[in-house]
This record gives sequence, structure tokens and C-alpha cells, in this order.
Amino acid sequence: MKSSIGVGLIGTGYMGKCHALAWNSVKPVFGSGAQPRLVHLAEVNAEIARTKADEFGSAKATGDWRELIADPEVDVVSVTTPNAFHAEMAIAALEAGKHVWCEKPMAVALADAERMAMVAKASGKVAVLGYNYIQNPLVRHIGALLEQGAIGAVNHVRLEMDEDFMADPEALFYWKSEASSGYGALDDFGVHPLSLLQVLFGSVIRVFAHLAKPYATRPTKEGTARAVETFDIASVLFELGGGISGVMALNRSAWGRKGRIALQIFGSKGSIVYDQERMNELQLYTAEGPGTERGYRTILTAPQHAPYDRFIPAPGHGLGFNDLKIIECHELLKAIAGEPARVIDFATGLGIERAVHAMARSHSEQRWVEV
Amino acid sequence: MKSSIGVGLIGTGYMGKCHALAWNSVKPVFGSGAQPRLVHLAEVNAEIARTKADEFGSAKATGDWRELIADPEVDVVSVTTPNAFHAEMAIAALEAGKHVWCEKPMAVALADAERMAMVAKASGKVAVLGYNYIQNPLVRHIGALLEQGAIGAVNHVRLEMDEDFMADPEALFYWKSEASSGYGALDDFGVHPLSLLQVLFGSVIRVFAHLAKPYATRPTKEGTARAVETFDIASVLFELGGGISGVMALNRSAWGRKGRIALQIFGSKGSIVYDQERMNELQLYTAEGPGTERGYRTILTAPQHAPYDRFIPAPGHGLGFNDLKIIECHELLKAIAGEPARVIDFATGLGIERAVHAMARSHSEQRWVEV
Amino acid sequence: MKSSIGVGLIGTGYMGKCHALAWNSVKPVFGSGAQPRLVHLAEVNAEIARTKADEFGSAKATGDWRELIADPEVDVVSVTTPNAFHAEMAIAALEAGKHVWCEKPMAVALADAERMAMVAKASGKVAVLGYNYIQNPLVRHIGALLEQGAIGAVNHVRLEMDEDFMADPEALFYWKSEASSGYGALDDFGVHPLSLLQVLFGSVIRVFAHLAKPYATRPTKEGTARAVETFDIASVLFELGGGISGVMALNRSAWGRKGRIALQIFGSKGSIVYDQERMNELQLYTAEGPGTERGYRTILTAPQHAPYDRFIPAPGHGLGFNDLKIIECHELLKAIAGEPARVIDFATGLGIERAVHAMARSHSEQRWVEV
Amino acid sequence: MKSSIGVGLIGTGYMGKCHALAWNSVKPVFGSGAQPRLVHLAEVNAEIARTKADEFGSAKATGDWRELIADPEVDVVSVTTPNAFHAEMAIAALEAGKHVWCEKPMAVALADAERMAMVAKASGKVAVLGYNYIQNPLVRHIGALLEQGAIGAVNHVRLEMDEDFMADPEALFYWKSEASSGYGALDDFGVHPLSLLQVLFGSVIRVFAHLAKPYATRPTKEGTARAVETFDIASVLFELGGGISGVMALNRSAWGRKGRIALQIFGSKGSIVYDQERMNELQLYTAEGPGTERGYRTILTAPQHAPYDRFIPAPGHGLGFNDLKIIECHELLKAIAGEPARVIDFATGLGIERAVHAMARSHSEQRWVEV
Repeated sequence: MKSSIGVGLIGTGYMGKCHALAWNSVKPVFGSGAQPRLVHLAEVNAEIARTKADEFGSAKATGDWRELIADPEVDVVSVTTPNAFHAEMAIAALEAGKHVWCEKPMAVALADAERMAMVAKASGKVAVLGYNYIQNPLVRHIGALLEQGAIGAVNHVRLEMDEDFMADPEALFYWKSEASSGYGALDDFGVHPLSLLQVLFGSVIRVFAHLAKPYATRPTKEGTARAVETFDIASVLFELGGGISGVMALNRSAWGRKGRIALQIFGSKGSIVYDQERMNELQLYTAEGPGTERGYRTILTAPQHAPYDRFIPAPGHGLGFNDLKIIECHELLKAIAGEPARVIDFATGLGIERAVHAMARSHSEQRWVEV
Repeated sequence: MKSSIGVGLIGTGYMGKCHALAWNSVKPVFGSGAQPRLVHLAEVNAEIARTKADEFGSAKATGDWRELIADPEVDVVSVTTPNAFHAEMAIAALEAGKHVWCEKPMAVALADAERMAMVAKASGKVAVLGYNYIQNPLVRHIGALLEQGAIGAVNHVRLEMDEDFMADPEALFYWKSEASSGYGALDDFGVHPLSLLQVLFGSVIRVFAHLAKPYATRPTKEGTARAVETFDIASVLFELGGGISGVMALNRSAWGRKGRIALQIFGSKGSIVYDQERMNELQLYTAEGPGTERGYRTILTAPQHAPYDRFIPAPGHGLGFNDLKIIECHELLKAIAGEPARVIDFATGLGIERAVHAMARSHSEQRWVEV
Repeated sequence: MKSSIGVGLIGTGYMGKCHALAWNSVKPVFGSGAQPRLVHLAEVNAEIARTKADEFGSAKATGDWRELIADPEVDVVSVTTPNAFHAEMAIAALEAGKHVWCEKPMAVALADAERMAMVAKASGKVAVLGYNYIQNPLVRHIGALLEQGAIGAVNHVRLEMDEDFMADPEALFYWKSEASSGYGALDDFGVHPLSLLQVLFGSVIRVFAHLAKPYATRPTKEGTARAVETFDIASVLFELGGGISGVMALNRSAWGRKGRIALQIFGSKGSIVYDQERMNELQLYTAEGPGTERGYRTILTAPQHAPYDRFIPAPGHGLGFNDLKIIECHELLKAIAGEPARVIDFATGLGIERAVHAMARSHSEQRWVEV
Repeated sequence: MKSSIGVGLIGTGYMGKCHALAWNSVKPVFGSGAQPRLVHLAEVNAEIARTKADEFGSAKATGDWRELIADPEVDVVSVTTPNAFHAEMAIAALEAGKHVWCEKPMAVALADAERMAMVAKASGKVAVLGYNYIQNPLVRHIGALLEQGAIGAVNHVRLEMDEDFMADPEALFYWKSEASSGYGALDDFGVHPLSLLQVLFGSVIRVFAHLAKPYATRPTKEGTARAVETFDIASVLFELGGGISGVMALNRSAWGRKGRIALQIFGSKGSIVYDQERMNELQLYTAEGPGTERGYRTILTAPQHAPYDRFIPAPGHGLGFNDLKIIECHELLKAIAGEPARVIDFATGLGIERAVHAMARSHSEQRWVEV
């Protein structure tokens, strides 16, 4: 493996910045592995690209992302553009022999996601999706607890994901309410809780979904009311392998919720509760010891929860959202180095997309749908 | 109305004691209204009846509940026996011209519940069910907030009820796992969250349910494994009037949960969150004020939340579970006095039973069922 | 012992009602022991006395409390009048050969408290103070945990008690701001956290205190500003036996706090955290097990925490403030029956009063004061 | 101002890494201002220095920190070595015309801190201390709330700082228990809560302190018990300007506490509660609106709480501990650019050190000490 890795970054919004920060920090944080260098940055035009390149520390900048992909100095491409562009860019990068780190979801259309997975497989390159929440050391620890049998055999799971960026009925209609953007909460962020299911329990077997619109119309700037085409709310029953039953509730119109991804896992010997809004806390209940002393334990992230220790040597001091991206970047580098890595690659990601589309079909057909 | 009301109590278990305490305390707490006197108590045999009558302060005791119902001193009958006996006793009491305070659920079979409602209607007597959680001053306050439009138009509701009394797979098979006891979590305690829905939103329109067994078998004392016939877990999608979508998850095998009845209500201007395990706290979020100051407000029960003030004049000192029964008793007395009262009578209770049976049918037929 | 105990109740305010409810419920709740009957009730005038006697279920009523004390049917006297009357009434009752259940604090003047303790001792009667918070099953369990060494040797304790009934600077001056009422937060409610210290750790050895006035003046209804004479805030350093260091902070002007009595106990093997505003929860941390699984356990009150089981057979359903008084009443009855009982009698209560006065002296003299 | 700033980093432990990460990320995060470049790194020997330089991205590395200070490419020096070296290094750097970013506390001896402040003043250079907790956007927002009068006139403050890295009595004696390391909890981490007081309320006026040792001795690896010379526990009463009374409790032997810095501020119109263990949450109570709706609001960090928006555009997603250092670095850069900056410079930091030493003297002399 090369000791230095050339990075090309396409897109510099929320996630673009996250990627840039991760690429900058991954080596100082982890200390080992290749040293990534941001070498090329692409934005919608050359001017913005140059400005952002200066901020993020990239020598080269371009208004044409294909130029970046053609750059021989670039070994891995971060794709952080709007969802509609993921397929085209990721496929082009893979076909150009680059590794790809692509933001989630894969694509709006399932066919595009399928193509992405196919090309990735054919390319032999590393193609990883930006499912950052699975990188939380506490989520990783949940996995370890499950494997150790700390709560016995799991029989029931509940998932919620709620934010309130679509909660205001007075806010103007914008693209997230257009059918072209997808189904709504399901693909907009349902893929996040699904990514947690994936790493903890494997693929979803079958689903029953109901989608709902809290507001039938939303105002336009012309003062009219435009019919909403997407579903801000999704309620899903599902089944995992081994007969585990589950409920997933998604709401991007949930006033008061800001970054809630709440997980409840019930097993034959205990239970685990987690909420991303308190991402440094894990609740663990084990049916052990005298009844007078039983209760949920609030576990704060500690150095023993790797790789928290790479960030902070003292417990309970708190990781942040952006730190998860640094961990994700490190896992990506491990994958590139051929080491076992905790990533959701395009093949696995395709499974998540399929679950989403199965949910949408279930809603239409009002029946259980196999994934 | 008589200034004193004669009370007959059938059953002296968990709920029987609750009723006795409520009958004793309702007048000192509320200060107004009739003075109830426990005059007759019935248990499975005369001896236990006498012992309990002494503890609870009843002059008369009997091993034959029909004797109690025939007692002219008895004006109202508390029915706190196992569910299988509710119909027979409540109907007999109503037919004897007594008011009835019957524990929930009404009956195992829907036909029995229907008969109860019919007889109650014909009797002209007050027939009330023991849905205590609706009596929490904070639940009442949720209703007031909804009516005031504090969170705007409600569009989504989530309900959870979880306890862990069936969580231990090593515990011996007992009657709660027999089909004769009902469906399982659905009727065993699903009626509680449904009672909250009823008082806050009215009847459920349609339901889709999935029932699950965390453990296929349970051990017997003979050392064999007996197939479990009831469903400890129920996952339900539902719709309320006005197109409100909802999710209800029930689990009586939920290790770590002791008395969780969690409610999340989302509206166009805010949201409300409540959990019975912290029954003296209410979370209210309103989309008002600067973004820097928005957040869920944790409201502690206060004298302004009537009738907390009848119990304690200082805020935040805490009501308990048994206090809810005293409030329920007071509402029953208001109903008997012909005043408006916050109760779930047999007619309304029948609607809850119908919802439960609709859920069970939905599970069997794997389709949405109208209630 | 008589199978029935005649109760006389003096005072029918907040605490008077609490006592009445407790006397009514103690036998149904606990099932064993003598059956108390409220036989005589005294209030400031005969009319109010009669009304309250009807509400609380007392046959006799009087406007002259000495009449109640002279009543041979009365075995035990509940003294729930304002603090200024405690000494006179309690002493009269004891001298009349009655047992006494007197609300806290004992008296405004230390000399009065000393007389009360002396008379109680001489009388040979049971004389108990209304320290209800020590009766919380979880507080009792804290004691059990300490005795078992669950958190090792205790080395540091923190106590806070905060409410906001004096927090409004616009509220009119009333007697709680007059020096004749006492020192302020110290005796008004500092005795409550001190009662917890007493049952958990024994007497306080020495204290250093600082008292503060959040508002120098308060408005009068005449529109003037009157100088405040009491201290709504008290900050205290203290030492317990065995060199345990402690901090106690009291504030009755603490906006937002409603019934906070927060306790933190640190030991060589763990710690315990408790807050009366969540009186059904206990936090326990033990330095055991792998670092990945350590955390505070939130223990909900359960039947295993006696005598919660006498109220509710299911865990996590919640006791209320008034229930604590029922437990206190039961302990009083045990004391009367000559059994070991968890009570703070006049002798022990005097120690608490002495600690309060030592704190006040420390504030004046700005030095550590031995209790 | 130069568009690029050369950074020299001395020390690469916990804080050294924090500084390196901050220097790397500050430009991508904030987008504006000078671009810092790590140009020189010093460690105890050349080999470690070279390894760390590679990890952190520094071209030059040295085993001799004086070489780094002499480097004309270095504009600003990060001093992250053990406390005993702060004075010498910071002074040398300032005298060499470098800006200095020095970790807290300034020095063990007050005289050293005084020299540091004096040299800093004489140098005309920017000399800033690493008080990261003041950089939390929520702490900044507390300041804004206080300025706006959101909770009226403050009258009482409580502070706690607790961790458990010294809690294990079986852990071997090490330098933190030696008197040469300082007083113990007071200077080891008491300076952190004091930094919060400083930015929110200005200097402490007078103090009364009590220091305590949870364990008189600690084991040595030779199997003997060595007397502990420092105080793991400190309990302090204090007074701020305007007669605000306060309590500060510190415990570095507090089992279960990992990064607790708890702040309670009471005012005439409300109160604010904060705990660093939940660093993305702020509790605000204002005495406004109907009594039924009052309660502490849990405010999650949001883009409106600058500069959270520079890290994440969505609310409630969570900053981490290391992010605070990036903000601190940005404030330092603002100070270097001559802009108003939220920093604690050597002059202000000296005030904090004086408060610490006053507390230690108060403990010895058992009296209130003016700072």
C-alpha cells in the first residue's frame, strides 16, 4: 500500500465538509496507516471550488468533477453531492479505478443502486457508503454485547428516527416534498436506522409499512398551496432473521426531535436502549443480581469502547457527530489496506435500499412484503 | 343523593386493595360529595373475606359474592376479581340495581363485553371501568393542551407499554400463557394505552397488527416444555380520526421495563412526550420563541394540574399509582351524583375491547381491519 | 396492646390532611397491627373542626385542642399545627399520657425542643417527629446498601434541598421572611436533608455555614419595601463521623426546583445518587465488572424494596408523597407496639435541631462549630 | 496579518493531540482567517518527536523544545507538557516573540504564574490558556442568557466537578498524590469550574474552603502504604461580585463520575442547569407563563448557538470534547488577528490561580480569605 493516499472530494456542503475534516484528522487521531492528502476538490463551479479548496487545504480545484476523477493523483473519491448525482459519480470513479466513499442513500432509483453495486463488484475497488452512525463506539459496543449474549437471545427490536426539519407547516414547499426526491422519511433518513439493524442483526426479512403525510399541502412563495408528494412519516413493522419482531417509526416532521435515532433491543436476559441525541450514553439492563439492585445502567463512552481512546484518554468526555466520520474514514482506509473493516459497502448498502423500496411497495399494496 | 354510599367490594387482591384504599381516602382527599362506607366484602371463602374485611374496615364479609350483591346496604359494587368473572358479577350487580366499578379489561370474550354494555345501558346505573392511567393529572393536562391547540393539529401518535413480568424464559408456564386468558399483551395490558387514546383522541378507526411470541415454549414444573399460546409482544399500526397515524408497541416480556406507558404526540406546532414510569413528569415542546431557547420542557405535577392540589398543595412532591385510583373513585362518585365525570363507562369501554379484537383479527388475516 | 387505637388530630392543613389519610390507610395497606380510629379532631374554631371532622371521618370535633388532649378515647395525638405551637401541644399531650406524632421541625427555639425531648423521655410515651422522607423505601434501601458495603467506605456526601416557593421577588412579604419564624431555609427545610443524614450516617459532628438573602427586601401590600429578616439560602460544609466530609446547599428561592432533595454519596467502591423529585428512582454505581459495562444503574422502586410491596405488588408503578406518611404512621404504630421502628423520636430530633442552631451560630461567628 | 501561521507544538500527549487536531481542523471548520500550518514539533526525544510529527503532519521535529522556539517559521507555540514545565516554556516562547497557547493550569507555584503573566504583558504577544469548557456553545449561550436577563439577577451559583480517576483506593500511589503536584483536586481541575465562573461572572471575591482526603494512604508497588499528600476532595463556599453566594464541590475520587462539571445558576426570574457529561444539553427555567406549563427546558445545541453551525448545520447532532479545542483555537487566532476573542489570557488566568491559592490558604487558616 502507498504510504500516502490522494483524496478527491466532490461536494463541499454538510457532508463534504465532514469528509474534509475526516480526511484531515484521521491520521493524527489514529496514528497508524496511510496518510491521506486532499489533492483535488470539485464543486459546481471553479470559483467555489477554489475557495473551498483553500479552506479545506486542497491544492487543486475544479468546477468539473470528471476532471477530478481523471486525476491520477487521486486514489479515492469522496462523493458528497445531492443523492441524484451519487450513481453517476460513484460509477465513473469506480470505472476510473478509484476507491469510492459515497454518502448515503445510494440513489433515488433502485435500478441505480443496483448498477452501483454491480460496478463496484466488477471494479475490485473499495466502495463504501457514509453510514456514520454505525461507527459510534457505543453502537459497536451494542454489537459486542449482543455477540457475548449479554442480553440473551434477542426477540424484539424498536427503532425510531425523528427530526423536525419538515415540521413547520408554514415553511415553503421545497424539493423534499417532491416525489422526484424519493418517498420521504423512508429513504431520506430511514436508511440510517436500517444501517444499525444491518450491522447488529443482518438483513431485514419482511416488512409492512404505512406512510403518512402530516400536511397535505405546503405553501409556495406565490401564496398558493401545493400538494405534498412525499411522506414525512413512516411506520413500519418488520421481521429480522430468527423471528425477531420489530417496529420502526420515522418522522421528519417531529417537532422537538433534532437528531433522535432511538433503539430498543429486548432479549431473553436483558435489554439495551440507545438514543443518538445522547450519543455518548448507552442503557443496559441485565436480569442479574438481586431485584433490589436491578436497573438500566447508563454507560458513558469510555476508552474501553474502542476507538474512543484514540480521541480522548478519559471517559465521559464526549465524542461528537463529526468524530464518527473520522472513525468511518479510518475504517475505509482499513478496507483499502485490505484489512477487515466495519463498513457498509455497496453490496450491503443495496440490501438497505431494497428494504426501503420493499417498505414503499408494502404501503402501496397494503401487505407484508419480503425484502 | 344519599350523603352516605354503601360500598360492596368483591375481590381483595392487587386491585381489590386499591379499591379499598380509594374508598377510604376519597372523602378526606376531596372533602366534598358523599361519604362512601365499605359495608360488605366478598372473597373466595368466608374466612379470607372476614380477615380482609377487618383489614379494610368492612363490617360484613362473605364467601358468596351473590350475598353481597343482594345486600340492600350496598349501593355500588367494586368488581376486582380475575377477568373471567367480570361479566357475570358486573351484570348481576347492575341487574340488582347497583352501580358498578369494574376492573379492566371488561371480559375475555367480546360477546361478554357486549352483554355488559347492554345490561349497563338498560340498567340506568353507573357502570365504570378501572382505567386508572387516564386519571393522572398530567394525562388530563395533556388533554387540555390538545384542546387548547398548544401543539397545533395532531398528526402522529406513538404509544408503548412495556413490563417484564413475562420476560424470564425460565419462569414456569402459567395461565397467562394459555389461550383461554386471551391474546396476551394485547388484552392483558394493551387496553391501558388504548384508554389513553380514547380520552385524548376518541376511538381508533382501523388497525394493522402483528403479534409475536418471544418464547415458543415455557418450562413446566414437570420439567417439560409447554407451547406458549399467547403473544407477549404486539406491534400495531393504527389510524385515529382526522387521519392521525399511529404506532403502538406492547411487550410484557420487556426486561427492564417495569411500568412503562410511553406516549409521544406530534402536532403541527409542537409535541408532547410522557412516560408512566415517571408519572409526575410531562415533556412539552412548542415551536415558539427563538431557536436558541427551544426544547422540551419537563413539567412536574403541580397544584395547577387539578386535582393534584387535593392531595398536596406544593408542586413536584409526587403522586403515586394508588392516588390515581382515588381520583378514579372520585370521578365515579361524580358520575353517581349525576355530574359530568372523566370515566370510561361500559359503552366506551366496549369500543376499546372492539379495538383489541380488531387487532387480533388483523394479525390473523394480515390486513388492515376497521374497528 | 389494644386492638384499636384512638387518634386525635390537631390541625387540618397540608400535614393535617396527610396524617388523616395515613391514619385511614395504614391498616388496609399493612394489614397487620392495631386498627387506628380517628376519634377527635381539633381546629382553630369549632365550626371548621366539625367540617373537617366530617371530611376526615372523626366523630368528635372541637375548637379547643386541650379538650382533645383530655379525651380518654384518644391514645395518640397528631400535632400538625404551625411550628410555634408544637412544643406546647406536644408537651401537654405527653403529660396527659398520650403518644405524640408531631410534625417537624420540633420548635423555633432550641430551648423548646429541649423541653419537648425532656418531657418525652420522662413520659415513657412514644414521641415521634414527621420526617417522612426517611420513609421512602429507596432511602431505606440506601441505608441497606451502605450497611452491606455496596459502595465501600463512604468518604464524601453532598446534599441539596431546593424549592421555589420564596423565589418570586415580587411576592408580598409574609411571615416566612420574619426573624420570628426562624433562620429561613435552615430550619424551614434544612431539617429534611439532615433527617436523611441522621438515619444514614448518624449525627453531624461539626459545621461551617454561610447564609444568604437573595432579596434584601420584599414588597408589602402597602407598596413599600420591607427588609427581609430570614435567609432563603444556606450553604454548609459539614463533617460526619469517621471523617466523612460533606456539603449541604439549601435554597427556598430556587426557581424551577419544586421538591428537590438531592443526595450524592461517594464511597471507596461506588456511589449513590438520589433526588426526591424522582422519588421512585435510585442511582447506584459500583466499581465492578468490565469498564465497558460500568455506569449508574437507575433502580425503580420494586416490591423487593419493603414496604413498597404493601402498596403495589408490581415494580416501577410509583409511590407518592402521601404514601410516605402512611409508612411513617406504620412505623409509629410499631413503636407504640414496642417493636423496633424506623422513626426519629424527640431525642434524636433534638440532635437535628442542635445541628441547625450550630449552623446558624457558625454563620454569625464565621467559624467551624461543633454540634 | 500573515495568511499562513506557523505552529510549533511542544508535547504530544492527551492535550498535544488535541492541539494538533485543532490546528488541523480550524480552517476547514471556520473557513475564514489565517491558515495555520504545523511546522515544528517537540517531544522528550527526537525519535518520538519524529514519529509524532509524521502522525500529526509536521515537517520538522525535535527532541529539544528550545530549538522549536528558536525556529523563525514558528509564529505560535502550543505548550502541552506537564504543568511543571509550563512557566519555563511559555516564558521562553514569549520572550522569543512567539504567541503562546498554554494548557491549564498555568503553574504549580503562584510565583511562576505571576511571572508568566508579567512576561506575557511585557511581550505584547497573545498568551492564552487552554480553558476549553468555556468554548462550549452552550456555555457561551449561558452567558448570553445572563446578559439578556433571561433569569433576572443572579443570586446563587453551584458548581461541581467530579471524576473518578483517583477513586480506586487499591490503585498504586503516583505523583498526583505527592504534594509537589499541587493541592489536589483544587488545582488539578478546580480551575475548570473557576474558568466558567470567570467568563460568566468575573472574579471570585472571597472563599472558604475545606479540603479532604478520601484515603489517608495509598499502596505502593513495594506493598507498603504511603501517606497521601494531596486532597482529592475540595468543598468551597464563595462569593462573587454583587453578593452572589456560591458553593463549589470538587472530587477526583468520585466513583461513577467521568467528566461531570455541573453548574446551577439561580436568578430572580429563573435558573439554568448544565452538566458537561451531557455537554450538548442546557436546562433553562424561566418563571413565565401559566403554572401548568412551567418546567426546565432541555435545549439541545443548535446552529443558532454559534459556532455550532460551523461544525454541523443540523441541531442536536452533537459536538464532542475535541471540537471545543477547535473553537478555542479559532478564538486564539482571532486574538492573534487583533479581533475581540473569547479567551482566558495569562492576566485573567492569573486571577483563577489566585483564587485556587486563596482556597488552599482558607483551608489552612480555617477562615474566609479574600482573593
